[in-house]
Amino acid sequence: MHTDGPVPTEKRTIGVDLSGPVLRASLVAGDGTVLRSVEAPLERDALGAQIARMAAELNGEQRASALGVGLPGLVDPQSGRVYLSTDLAAAMREGFHAELESATGLPVLLENDANAAAYGEYVAGAGRGSRCIFYVLLGYGIGGALIFDGHIWRGASGFAGEFGHITIDPDGIQCACGNVGCLETVASAPNIVRRTHERLFRDSTSSLSKLAINRDFTVSDITREARNGDDFALLMLERTGRYIGTAIAAIINLLNVERIILGGIVMEAGELLLDPIIREARRRSFQPCFETTEIVASRLGLEAVTVGAALLAARKNQTAEP
Amino acid sequence: MHTDGPVPTEKRTIGVDLSGPVLRASLVAGDGTVLRSVEAPLERDALGAQIARMAAELNGEQRASALGVGLPGLVDPQSGRVYLSTDLAAAMREGFHAELESATGLPVLLENDANAAAYGEYVAGAGRGSRCIFYVLLGYGIGGALIFDGHIWRGASGFAGEFGHITIDPDGIQCACGNVGCLETVASAPNIVRRTHERLFRDSTSSLSKLAINRDFTVSDITREARNGDDFALLMLERTGRYIGTAIAAIINLLNVERIILGGIVMEAGELLLDPIIREARRRSFQPCFETTEIVASRLGLEAVTVGAALLAARKNQTAEP
Repeated sequence: MHTDGPVPTEKRTIGVDLSGPVLRASLVAGDGTVLRSVEAPLERDALGAQIARMAAELNGEQRASALGVGLPGLVDPQSGRVYLSTDLAAAMREGFHAELESATGLPVLLENDANAAAYGEYVAGAGRGSRCIFYVLLGYGIGGALIFDGHIWRGASGFAGEFGHITIDPDGIQCACGNVGCLETVASAPNIVRRTHERLFRDSTSSLSKLAINRDFTVSDITREARNGDDFALLMLERTGRYIGTAIAAIINLLNVERIILGGIVMEAGELLLDPIIREARRRSFQPCFETTEIVASRLGLEAVTVGAALLAARKNQTAEP
Repeated sequence: MHTDGPVPTEKRTIGVDLSGPVLRASLVAGDGTVLRSVEAPLERDALGAQIARMAAELNGEQRASALGVGLPGLVDPQSGRVYLSTDLAAAMREGFHAELESATGLPVLLENDANAAAYGEYVAGAGRGSRCIFYVLLGYGIGGALIFDGHIWRGASGFAGEFGHITIDPDGIQCACGNVGCLETVASAPNIVRRTHERLFRDSTSSLSKLAINRDFTVSDITREARNGDDFALLMLERTGRYIGTAIAAIINLLNVERIILGGIVMEAGELLLDPIIREARRRSFQPCFETTEIVASRLGLEAVTVGAALLAARKNQTAEP
């Protein structure tokens, strides 16, 4: 599916990130450079119109040649069909892909959000120079993607890489996927907030208790309070890191990729999360495997999905042209 | 490393299985057919001499051209060096590979036992016709191997595929690898026996209680009693299957390979173990991934390691020849 040649820098495409409650769209050059970005709260009921509007805003004098969308769900990029998306039901509608093409007037590529982000990091971010990476998207959901020699590993059905649904606690709580105790049930952004809420009453000295009186807090609040030295917030990040590290150890032992890249909004916590992840992964993996797999933070940050989706759209478009 | 052409049928090589307390050696034709087999209790302190003796026994008028050994540990087949083997410390001795070549007078290939078995199934067993398989060796230890387009996935260090050390119970018992609660700590042959022993006192009506008075029982005893209708033995297999199925679900969600093949002595239980494995894997994996990944029993059974090791030795030897 991918050509091996680089996409010319002057070829501009648009990448759209539908992985969370805020829609981000970026105009991206052929080398992965982000030229302009816009964001707005996701309009679930009018996605096509919203994306068309943002694309028009990004298109300058030199029109983008294609548009790539990263979304949380099981996606077939060839057909543009979305088979399962527990977080974005609107995308599962038949005709969603055609609707986006008609609304934007551009060739549209749909891709799983973690696959898109992984590809972005591989080409233009923390994966550069590695032959084989595993990318973990720690966001509103948790996704994963394996890239080997430039190819996204899709598996027999096309949906491989579902890192967020590795079982971490066999007797844990129900996940939207049907399983119980998935990593996602404890370490996605909303579930970190849920766990923090549930445990807050045990520690009324935390600054998060005061926040919780007036409004719901977010994972970014937890990160900020942890940076300000709040012990309880630090503890919640530490425990979250241990859950994630347990699943990372499985990737190390099974795949022993050259690099594991962690991104998504949860990774705004930086080393406060990365350190416990690495500690737990070391504790739970084979030493020779651990020592040869680097665990690093995303370099593209919240632009990983947009950059990857834009580059994948550029490649597909280039291949399709005569 | 592998040539793509088939190994001529008349080329005979010897495969040796060091994965358990019984050493098995087989003379194998180029198409994977087992021509003759011998087995004997493993002589840990005189492995070289024992393997040479068994090879001589197998060599008929037409001498085998190479010998492959599958063993439990982290192995570099290129150098013949064994980096870590918790179950077979003798193989870690520097010079082990040279010693085997000198004792047998044959070119020797060392390979991880699960990798060898996976290759055997891929070429001549339950993996035939699949492009991408994951093989699970459920024996005295638990190993795994991923084969893609005829290549064993080795990862950055060469030691990928360590399926037995996926964490199943984060608060479980200590594993020899350093982690706690690995799949191997509950589902390897000795650990199935240990768990059965520990729970036996709760169910004195089981026929295993009578066995336990006079001697230690084995996983084969548990399987036999389960086949004879012993409820407790059935329950132990059912629970073991659920542990294995939980880890299999991770492979399905992450890799979504075409086929997962289960082998090793523990799989002598056949459908008594396979059924609960499949049930739990279905419960814990994404439906589209589950539906496109077949879960099947090994076809080569206890010859998987010998056949795979022999075929890998044949290929290496063929490639090395002018």
